[in-house]
Amino acid sequence: MAKYVYLFKEANATMRNLLGGKGANLAEMTNLGMPVPQGFTVSTEACTQYYTDGRRINDEIVAQIFDALHKTEEIVGKTFGDNENPFLVSVRSGARASMPGMMDTILNLGLNDDAVLGLAKQTNNPRFAFDSYRRFITMFSDVVMEISKSNFEAIFDKKKEEKGIELDTELTAEDLKEIVEGFKARYLELKGEPFPQDPKVQLIESIKAVFRSWDNPRANYYRRMNNIPYEWGTAVNVQAMVFGNMGEDSGTGVAFTRDPSTGEKEFYGEYLFNAQGEDVVAGIRTPKPISELEKDNPAIYKQFREISDKLEKHYKDMQDMEFTIEKGKLFMLQTRNGKRTAQAALKIAIDLVKEGLLTEQEALLKVDPKQLDALLHPTFEPTSLASAEVIAKGLNASPGAATGRAVFTAERAAELAKDGKPVILVRTETSPEDIEGMAVASGVLTSRGGMTSHAAVVARGMGTCCVAGAGTVKVNEEEKFFEVAGKKYFEGDYISLDGSTGNIYGEEIKTQDATVSGDFATLMAWADKYRSLKVRTNADNPRDAKTAYDFGAEGIGLCRTEHMFFEGERIKAMREMIVSKTVEEREVALAKLLPMQRQDFIGLYEEMHGFPVTIRYLDPPLHEFLPNEDEDIAELAKEMGLTFDELKATVESLHETNPMLGHRGVRLSLTYPEIAVMQTTAVIEAAIHVNQNGGKVIPEIMIPLVGELKELKYLKDIVVKTADEIIAKAGVELEYSVGTMIEIPRAAILAEEIATEAEFFSFGTNDLTQMTFGFSRDDAGKFLGDYYDKKIFENDPFAHVDTKGVGTLMKWAVEGGRKTRKDMKMGICGEHGGDPDSVDFCHNIGLSYVSCSPFRVPIARLAAAHANIKNPRK
Amino acid sequence: MAKYVYLFKEANATMRNLLGGKGANLAEMTNLGMPVPQGFTVSTEACTQYYTDGRRINDEIVAQIFDALHKTEEIVGKTFGDNENPFLVSVRSGARASMPGMMDTILNLGLNDDAVLGLAKQTNNPRFAFDSYRRFITMFSDVVMEISKSNFEAIFDKKKEEKGIELDTELTAEDLKEIVEGFKARYLELKGEPFPQDPKVQLIESIKAVFRSWDNPRANYYRRMNNIPYEWGTAVNVQAMVFGNMGEDSGTGVAFTRDPSTGEKEFYGEYLFNAQGEDVVAGIRTPKPISELEKDNPAIYKQFREISDKLEKHYKDMQDMEFTIEKGKLFMLQTRNGKRTAQAALKIAIDLVKEGLLTEQEALLKVDPKQLDALLHPTFEPTSLASAEVIAKGLNASPGAATGRAVFTAERAAELAKDGKPVILVRTETSPEDIEGMAVASGVLTSRGGMTSHAAVVARGMGTCCVAGAGTVKVNEEEKFFEVAGKKYFEGDYISLDGSTGNIYGEEIKTQDATVSGDFATLMAWADKYRSLKVRTNADNPRDAKTAYDFGAEGIGLCRTEHMFFEGERIKAMREMIVSKTVEEREVALAKLLPMQRQDFIGLYEEMHGFPVTIRYLDPPLHEFLPNEDEDIAELAKEMGLTFDELKATVESLHETNPMLGHRGVRLSLTYPEIAVMQTTAVIEAAIHVNQNGGKVIPEIMIPLVGELKELKYLKDIVVKTADEIIAKAGVELEYSVGTMIEIPRAAILAEEIATEAEFFSFGTNDLTQMTFGFSRDDAGKFLGDYYDKKIFENDPFAHVDTKGVGTLMKWAVEGGRKTRKDMKMGICGEHGGDPDSVDFCHNIGLSYVSCSPFRVPIARLAAAHANIKNPRK
Repeated sequence: MAKYVYLFKEANATMRNLLGGKGANLAEMTNLGMPVPQGFTVSTEACTQYYTDGRRINDEIVAQIFDALHKTEEIVGKTFGDNENPFLVSVRSGARASMPGMMDTILNLGLNDDAVLGLAKQTNNPRFAFDSYRRFITMFSDVVMEISKSNFEAIFDKKKEEKGIELDTELTAEDLKEIVEGFKARYLELKGEPFPQDPKVQLIESIKAVFRSWDNPRANYYRRMNNIPYEWGTAVNVQAMVFGNMGEDSGTGVAFTRDPSTGEKEFYGEYLFNAQGEDVVAGIRTPKPISELEKDNPAIYKQFREISDKLEKHYKDMQDMEFTIEKGKLFMLQTRNGKRTAQAALKIAIDLVKEGLLTEQEALLKVDPKQLDALLHPTFEPTSLASAEVIAKGLNASPGAATGRAVFTAERAAELAKDGKPVILVRTETSPEDIEGMAVASGVLTSRGGMTSHAAVVARGMGTCCVAGAGTVKVNEEEKFFEVAGKKYFEGDYISLDGSTGNIYGEEIKTQDATVSGDFATLMAWADKYRSLKVRTNADNPRDAKTAYDFGAEGIGLCRTEHMFFEGERIKAMREMIVSKTVEEREVALAKLLPMQRQDFIGLYEEMHGFPVTIRYLDPPLHEFLPNEDEDIAELAKEMGLTFDELKATVESLHETNPMLGHRGVRLSLTYPEIAVMQTTAVIEAAIHVNQNGGKVIPEIMIPLVGELKELKYLKDIVVKTADEIIAKAGVELEYSVGTMIEIPRAAILAEEIATEAEFFSFGTNDLTQMTFGFSRDDAGKFLGDYYDKKIFENDPFAHVDTKGVGTLMKWAVEGGRKTRKDMKMGICGEHGGDPDSVDFCHNIGLSYVSCSPFRVPIARLAAAHANIKNPRK
Repeated sequence: MAKYVYLFKEANATMRNLLGGKGANLAEMTNLGMPVPQGFTVSTEACTQYYTDGRRINDEIVAQIFDALHKTEEIVGKTFGDNENPFLVSVRSGARASMPGMMDTILNLGLNDDAVLGLAKQTNNPRFAFDSYRRFITMFSDVVMEISKSNFEAIFDKKKEEKGIELDTELTAEDLKEIVEGFKARYLELKGEPFPQDPKVQLIESIKAVFRSWDNPRANYYRRMNNIPYEWGTAVNVQAMVFGNMGEDSGTGVAFTRDPSTGEKEFYGEYLFNAQGEDVVAGIRTPKPISELEKDNPAIYKQFREISDKLEKHYKDMQDMEFTIEKGKLFMLQTRNGKRTAQAALKIAIDLVKEGLLTEQEALLKVDPKQLDALLHPTFEPTSLASAEVIAKGLNASPGAATGRAVFTAERAAELAKDGKPVILVRTETSPEDIEGMAVASGVLTSRGGMTSHAAVVARGMGTCCVAGAGTVKVNEEEKFFEVAGKKYFEGDYISLDGSTGNIYGEEIKTQDATVSGDFATLMAWADKYRSLKVRTNADNPRDAKTAYDFGAEGIGLCRTEHMFFEGERIKAMREMIVSKTVEEREVALAKLLPMQRQDFIGLYEEMHGFPVTIRYLDPPLHEFLPNEDEDIAELAKEMGLTFDELKATVESLHETNPMLGHRGVRLSLTYPEIAVMQTTAVIEAAIHVNQNGGKVIPEIMIPLVGELKELKYLKDIVVKTADEIIAKAGVELEYSVGTMIEIPRAAILAEEIATEAEFFSFGTNDLTQMTFGFSRDDAGKFLGDYYDKKIFENDPFAHVDTKGVGTLMKWAVEGGRKTRKDMKMGICGEHGGDPDSVDFCHNIGLSYVSCSPFRVPIARLAAAHANIKNPRK
């Protein structure tokens, strides 16, 4: 028979998966001989079983709970339901991963109409007893019975009004007794039955409520954001109550072994005498700094410091502890590795190594790669943020915080920015013409488009904060305002964006600049020492390439050449090429693009200082370079010396029902090989130029969207012929390689064969995810919400590699490719390349490198180190 | 060292792959002691090597050719290049599969200015000698040197004009000599060098030309149509010339051992005295029926009949033979299994069994499943077709031949049809409102849309001829005409369509009705006896279901329920559902659809007489049910009592960038589970109704577009709950199963897991092909032409299952599914289900059934028998 319930003294810290963090640590502290109010943990497996059984706790588990309860009674010397000396307990959630505030807690459980009198008598404090009872009724009703707290607050406030008092503490025992009566009457009225008097019923119902809270919307949302599986479930801790509000020899507090903001090694925390935890939170009384406890009660302080030192050394990490002093006796209610700012995380990790507590590898594992974002981008000032209200949410498309005046055109953004005014560019969606405005904006907000929309990709490259695809924001670009929930925000109004969460605020929030300390360099150096996966960047221009190089990128894994064709004069030449009717006309237009493209590549090569540069050939369907609206077509036709009908006909002939699956990638080059000839000429001539000027470039030419060996072979033959002719003509030696994206399921399946021509693979996991799932990234937003709500998906497959489906194809492709070419270079250049979970997966399947946007390079470096420390490569 | 060249006497009929059909059969006849002009075959491997070597014949192969030539000289007792007794040869292509007329032939090779004199002297017939020389110059120049025949015809015609004569035969030897001089001068003028005099050069250049002709456009097109791999290459046969034009004791002819039109066992053919093969083709003289040869030359006739009888028995098939009589001596130039009409194919196969020459299995293999189409659909009268001109081509979307007056609206089609006039409905594309017009039309022509467009799918179901997606046909529906190459065809003009080839004719061509003989039933009964794969049909209405049942369908493999929602009142209710704002509103609209859907299912069940019926739940994106154009939206809004803006907003909110990868299939039911509840209610209530009335239905409920187990589980739970409640309420017993389509790559990859919930699989190879290749079927037409031209693809992956990519996924899914459920039922319901090659593949990977459109059911039955005979299931 499975064991579902563990006494604290039966367990230890290694049982975190089974008992949750809180339960495992309470057990560990018990084992360490620390003063912990005793109790037991109902395991996460019991939670899973609760859901399997159709949201009920089966008899077996109920029996185990009561068995553990009896053993606890023996330990604490009190009996549950004994009205003379009532045994009160708290019921708290505790999942494997910390999910602060997401689930529910019930305190003072065990009180009823009789026990409250016993408690009054025993403590000789009727006011305390009835105050505890009214708190319990409120909490139980709220958490277990889903009766809103406001029902009780109204009664409470009314009493205070009647008595003409302001502070809760002014209420007498008699007042509280009357309030309890009022609460119970309200409960009866709302539920049609009296408030449950049987402590056992209270207990089981409360445990069920905690299990249930695992599935509440905020918990689900939090899990999705933090990639915590629904399957894990939560444990429930049932623990003897201790009271910090039993008089001036009682109290409660929280403390950290180091400063969680700065990481400084100084004991940090606060406490309140004669109070319960809630009172601290309620903010009615101002807590004292923990240091004053030393003066107030030196013995307790000494004991607490000894415990906390021991805990930090034991867990080898900064601890966040909760304690209560009941009538002069210290109790530890919780310890856990403390949450900390990114800066503090670095400092603590490095200090713990210096102090000899951690190895470098262990220290690296203490820093969450995702946290680094906060070091590289501006953040909101916490105090300024505290009072701000989220008006809408979008996709967290590019991290950082931004505040500024809303503008609706790139031109206006440039004007205001010139005057030194911070602006947020707000658009339905951005297009290449908006680049200039995006470059000067503090942040970019779009109402349409996904994580790989133009706005998102460009902003990430620039390191500019961006919230994309905020569907509830209705942008009226013509009249220059946007509307959210009926409220309009006009040009010049202050708004703020959090690109790391997707939050949008309708007001100014002060930001603080990113600060990169020496600790950052130290940690990154360690990361580089322990990783085996290389980290490259996705960059299409020298500016982004330089940023990435400075962040430690070891090459360019993806240069999207089409981005080079959108700016200024270039798009004109591109459009000339598109409307060409003959190969000759097309070649004339391409000849105009050649010098620009060559210059682009020279810039990229130079910024990479000898690291490899992977250049992907033209990928998007040609219609992306032409306007759609008749008005714009007419204008362009005039500009190009065409009739409207001619240009319209071109636009229509390029229209596709499913452009994602249309005439793009290698398919374009098959139809128009002259494009590949031009691009090869630029790649090779630029490399020769750079090498002749002291550089050392080995270009990697990458053919996109290949699904069949012959596609690749056809194009590779053209590339090699063109390249070799140029090289021979220049009389130089130049190495280059030709490889392919693996982004079509068929390419992954046939990787072994494709590797006979491909000299390297790069996984394009954006497209591979789209086709493996049959999801259009542009459209999936409409139904992914339903998928989360119905627990079909726990998170977005475009954010984290779907290891089961897409990942299986990747593994096949890695194995297949290496069958043909033993040491074949393989990377990933999809959005997933900067996602720590996906980096871990890429490490484990044996990729050579990941490539990500410049500001994600440090994250990927750290994630790669984590992956290799956890699972070292042979 | 590889052997590339074989004397006829070194080879035999089993070497067809290496030596081509013609070469292998010439060898076989040689072995059988038949009178064959001797020679040798340059193998198909030499052809492949020719392409590998960059279109040259390497020295090794050249040496082998001349070696074989010398040995042939010894056999025939003549020497190549001997001007006294010149040794002349023919050079003919001969591929593994017969490709009549697709490649090139050169006769009389070996002639030059000296040899022609030798030939004149030796034959004592200068006219014959110079006539042979001028024919050789023309052929060699045309085939080898790419000099158009018209250059020579002009000279020839000019001479006839000068002499004032009409018939070629009136030209004298002297005339022909002058003509030869003229030809040679013209050759020199065009090529800058004299006509090659060295017979060895002539020979090697001619062999190269035949190899080259393997890659000519018409050969490529023919191969693609007949699914013949480019890799096979062609062999080349070099054979001693014999002359049927050496006087009245010479002649040439063709004969069949049975009548190729009817299959009757009567010797059939024609011959001409004193003539070469070309003369028969040129039609200047009318050949005599072969039976007259018996009178003209009884000895030769007897010899020929003995040979032909022996050949038929030897090859166990009707033979198509070419022969030449040179100066009273019979020579066999070719024998092959003769091409025949579908009707003849059946009769011959069955007669050969009756005659004890073939087993039933062997007889089945003699009938090409694709040929059956011709038995089931009208065809053009050959004489009427002969003179007709193809004005355009589209996709061969639904087979058969049709002729009638062009109409441009369904209404007009109905009007004219009522008057008994045959009509062809011409539309840009069809929509559900056109159904009535399609039902009365003889054929349907669309200018847009692919093999699975509305027009194609509906026409196939009806068995109506359809040519779809004819891009060069510009349809002007408003002004009621279409335009092809500048010519307009107006309403009422006669046009004709061949739905089996995609040909469009701008005139009336008489058609003949399909005739199904008793032979058909016999052959189908044999097919059923030897196949293990079941054959079901794709049918959405009782009419199609009945057709399919009559054709032998063993159930419905795919009922596309959305097709039921397009007609009349139904689309109104569907649209009400779509614009609903709440679940309740949606349920009201669905309640209107329920009785109609239930009635549909009753009809289908009844027509299937106890065979299983698989019902696929709603699949297409909802926007397919709404209009797109503002005008239509306004009209519909008025009809529905909505404002234009409201309806427009709905249409816009449903718009998708890539609808193929959008909100459809199971994703719709996840968002709107009430649709699945309605559909389940209809499926189950209909089954109960039918069973209570003496039927026996086991419905199979199929969830489309599943890519993740939890999707299926979520929906299956709803289906099972709904179904079980209805069954319990009715107090009956009813079996049903719930399965899924495998049409998303991820589903194939995770089939083992998905099979824990899915009770059956059905491969949706249309979508699976789209996603595995990353090809949108609607858009791929634009670039697939380039793919064929550049030999990336040899045929359309939407027509034949891509066994390497898509097929690998299918195999994985079959293995995975059967790991979980040992005897899991698996079928295919994509377009490929009716394609014989794909049926073969489905048999080999172990599917339980294929499902195809009604008129393809016999084809699939025969293909399934072929598959099992070739590769019997254990």
